[in-house]
Amino acid sequence: MNLADIALIGLAVMGQNLILNMNDHGFVVCAYNRTVSKVDEFLANEAKGTKIVGARSLEDMVSKLKKPRRVMMLVKAGQAVDDFIQKLEPLLEAGDIIIDGGNSEYRDSTRRCKELKAKGILFVGSGVSGGEDGARYGPSLMPGGDSAAWPHIKDIFQSIAAQVENEPCCDWVGDEGAGHFVKMVHNGIEYGDMQLICEAYHLMKDILGMEQDEMAKAFEDWNKTELDSFLIEITSDILKYKGTDGEHLLPKIQDTAGQKGTGKWTAISALEFGVPVTLIGEAVFARCLSSLKRERIVASKQLCGPKHAPFKGDKAAFLEDIRKALYASKIISYAQGFILFRQAAEEFGWKLNYGGIAMMWRGGCIIRSVFLGKIKEAFDRSPDLQNLLLDGFFKKEMENCQDSWRRVVSTGVQFGIPMPCFTTALSFYDGYRHEMLPANLIQAQRDYFGAHTYELLAKPGVFVHTNWTGHGGNVSSSSYNV
Amino acid sequence: MNLADIALIGLAVMGQNLILNMNDHGFVVCAYNRTVSKVDEFLANEAKGTKIVGARSLEDMVSKLKKPRRVMMLVKAGQAVDDFIQKLEPLLEAGDIIIDGGNSEYRDSTRRCKELKAKGILFVGSGVSGGEDGARYGPSLMPGGDSAAWPHIKDIFQSIAAQVENEPCCDWVGDEGAGHFVKMVHNGIEYGDMQLICEAYHLMKDILGMEQDEMAKAFEDWNKTELDSFLIEITSDILKYKGTDGEHLLPKIQDTAGQKGTGKWTAISALEFGVPVTLIGEAVFARCLSSLKRERIVASKQLCGPKHAPFKGDKAAFLEDIRKALYASKIISYAQGFILFRQAAEEFGWKLNYGGIAMMWRGGCIIRSVFLGKIKEAFDRSPDLQNLLLDGFFKKEMENCQDSWRRVVSTGVQFGIPMPCFTTALSFYDGYRHEMLPANLIQAQRDYFGAHTYELLAKPGVFVHTNWTGHGGNVSSSSYNV
Repeated sequence: MNLADIALIGLAVMGQNLILNMNDHGFVVCAYNRTVSKVDEFLANEAKGTKIVGARSLEDMVSKLKKPRRVMMLVKAGQAVDDFIQKLEPLLEAGDIIIDGGNSEYRDSTRRCKELKAKGILFVGSGVSGGEDGARYGPSLMPGGDSAAWPHIKDIFQSIAAQVENEPCCDWVGDEGAGHFVKMVHNGIEYGDMQLICEAYHLMKDILGMEQDEMAKAFEDWNKTELDSFLIEITSDILKYKGTDGEHLLPKIQDTAGQKGTGKWTAISALEFGVPVTLIGEAVFARCLSSLKRERIVASKQLCGPKHAPFKGDKAAFLEDIRKALYASKIISYAQGFILFRQAAEEFGWKLNYGGIAMMWRGGCIIRSVFLGKIKEAFDRSPDLQNLLLDGFFKKEMENCQDSWRRVVSTGVQFGIPMPCFTTALSFYDGYRHEMLPANLIQAQRDYFGAHTYELLAKPGVFVHTNWTGHGGNVSSSSYNV
Repeated sequence: MNLADIALIGLAVMGQNLILNMNDHGFVVCAYNRTVSKVDEFLANEAKGTKIVGARSLEDMVSKLKKPRRVMMLVKAGQAVDDFIQKLEPLLEAGDIIIDGGNSEYRDSTRRCKELKAKGILFVGSGVSGGEDGARYGPSLMPGGDSAAWPHIKDIFQSIAAQVENEPCCDWVGDEGAGHFVKMVHNGIEYGDMQLICEAYHLMKDILGMEQDEMAKAFEDWNKTELDSFLIEITSDILKYKGTDGEHLLPKIQDTAGQKGTGKWTAISALEFGVPVTLIGEAVFARCLSSLKRERIVASKQLCGPKHAPFKGDKAAFLEDIRKALYASKIISYAQGFILFRQAAEEFGWKLNYGGIAMMWRGGCIIRSVFLGKIKEAFDRSPDLQNLLLDGFFKKEMENCQDSWRRVVSTGVQFGIPMPCFTTALSFYDGYRHEMLPANLIQAQRDYFGAHTYELLAKPGVFVHTNWTGHGGNVSSSSYNV
């Protein structure tokens, strides 16, 4: 009897497509679903004529697997995952592997990894990005968990993943919940990239007065530059798109952005860890503000904007300024994302594969871009790179962009265009490159009203308190000044 | 025997000072502490010659109280609060009152309120602000919980609270954990106010090249304007302050800001509720960035700033611009804080006393200011005010400030000064007053890559999907344009 290479539980579209993808690459997959009729339907239709086998029960499924057994789940995140793990556990033996490919919270994956390790079972929590098409023809895969599992799943995972320049968009991320953590941050960065494009679009439309097709052309051109990416490409398509009435569709679409929560989780993690991931935070808040549509309609009739003359400058030059502002802001966003990875690695004692993460995102997922290749190269140059901004290539890029970036922000401000992400990125850049920030005043205030104590620059590590209101005591000493 | 009006558990400085404060106002307080020796010491020293009585056990304490019994705790937040509640419960009867005056998480207070209500005991979770001095001579008190308790504690609470223009800085906040929620937001707003002052200080110092004493004078002058507040006042004191060596102390203080977490909690709540409280978020992140001192020192030697000529404009005029930028940003911050209150009220079904909250903060606490009186007046004018920015007074203030605000931001950007809070406030103002934001592009993108569907402006509530890549189908229709 021919034994299956891997079993997959959960025959919704994502699961079915991953199975077909694995089958295309020569792996024998055993398909199972809680509602068994779905297995029969799948085998009779989508899987017809393939090497895919089905199972009618978990016992049946496990009996059809090579050892060590590899069982991948694509079920609803949360209780369903724990339920299946509980049912599988008694059927498996030490060294077998359970893979969760759903959108689980990374803390759950860490917990499951530890619980199963104690029982000798190897757990993998893997981010899967790229939607239905990605699953079918090449997703971005971000597996993390028990590293002992990697040698046994590497071949399957790297074969079915998207390939860019013959490199698979899949590598081992790190320990415990690292795979799902990286997927969460991927989504947060996606929020940031989308908001940055919106701000560029807003500036083109309301300062340069560009028409839909002009803007579509601009994004098409930008897609041939450092900004070459999926989101820039589809933005051009969207701007071009006309409905059956021959009119552009975009201006007719409601401007209230929805969200599923992973961007929010990323910002919350940044706050929990105490690292300044400001751009994703602003991108999430920008969606929140957009959803206050009814209030904004009221406010728009009552709150005045700035009085300003129409744009007088060189349009082509300012358009290029906008492109550079977007590029510089994007570099900041990714630099912040990797600060979050560093902090998570420290918090949880994870060894993270930074360059590998960039490579995993180069294809198959929403934020795929040429730019990510540059990040990979930066980490190849120095694996311990503390911050992307300190890499030679990105340092140069920031230098080239910053004048344009500053022109765009000051012009946008004069025209009253909201630019939460362009501006927070610039504040981060300017704050990060300041050896001395005004936070010494915060420390003095906290010591003044709460006796929280402070350090002197000259004596780091030594915390002292000053009786700020005791001016009398200093009269004589300050008279030295005379 | 003379029975005590209220018992207070926890004789650390805050507890002792609150007891002495209550005693000053003619209330008989029964003092108790887990380590009973502390009770004896307190009675023998700080409480000597007062009407304060002591208790040697919880039973003893309860027996000395008038009914309904009022027991206030000032113990460490967390388990200690639950432990005391558990011990007290069997000693109390229906209608008795337990007050937690510690820094509890508002969710814990909501839980305790529900658990005790089921047992007929009235729970109050009260924010107490103002530090040791406040506790002793007049704190800001923010009580919330079981409203049936209010009539029984109102007299004590409003007597010991700070008084501003003969109004106590204490009123009933709302249900369940509302009191501690409002205290949390108070701290978040405090983070924002402090960061805004830091940005003004940074601009004065590095653009206008002002000396310590000049800046001290500026803040002193500002304290006679709409900005009249405790934090502006102490900033002037701090800038003036010289050490025994006769030199100004502030420039010698380490610029890494510490934090205790309540600002963070506020930002996290905003993200959880999905409301754009961007300024507090940026203020928290600014402290996080300041703490990356070692990295900033490295970056400062490698990342270049903008090349710019020295400031050529009218210094006095720009200083006034900075003042107005600070004022406008502060209005945004409070408007955002009250958006958070509205959302919490909706999430938890709380009735919140918005005007009362502003009044409670007018004195006794760190953010006390004249400005809060204006907020109180705004809610007196229209109790259902949806947003502070829509109140006539604040609308006018924004109008008066916005040109200055925009000048400061564009100048600061050209000089490379980080202004995370000035700029995020301006982006919020500009976003909030836009009937149409570019989020329609986000919706189109989400529908393009994830079939998330979108609404048409013309058909709100109806979600549709477009096959964006099906260009072929539109060739004929778009030929209508010809």
